[in-house]
Amino acid sequence: MKVRVLVCLKNGVLDPQGQTVRHALHVLGYQQVKDVRQGKVFEIELEGVDKDMAFKLIPEIADKVLANPIIETFSWEILE
Amino acid sequence: MKVRVLVCLKNGVLDPQGQTVRHALHVLGYQQVKDVRQGKVFEIELEGVDKDMAFKLIPEIADKVLANPIIETFSWEILE
Repeated sequence: MKVRVLVCLKNGVLDPQGQTVRHALHVLGYQQVKDVRQGKVFEIELEGVDKDMAFKLIPEIADKVLANPIIETFSWEILE
Repeated sequence: MKVRVLVCLKNGVLDPQGQTVRHALHVLGYQQVKDVRQGKVFEIELEGVDKDMAFKLIPEIADKVLANPIIETFSWEILE
């Protein structure tokens, strides 16, 4: 089974990477870009895990390793 | 309009960050995790851009700034 976990900064947490990208896009003339937030994506290949197990496992893994729950939130989906 | 761009390393490109995460998960006892690939996600707020313009703009931005087309691929979707 393959899952995708998205980890993004919580609203209100400063995002210097995103601001840098936004600035670069403005310099290049893309004034339509109002805001950019950057996060991380993890594509995880699981072995011997069914859907029910994934619903327990992935939030656990995300909280412990993939995201910093103080400043980040995560969402996830099953890809295949 | 809000769009989400996912930038991932191409297959075959070494992913030390993903390997580090996989190793950390194995050390913590999550042997079900067979592989981890890490990438970037950008949530971009656009102003005065309709769907047709986004279909031209986003791939351009992704190729120029968000992704390195030599080693990365991107996909994107409209969120709202």
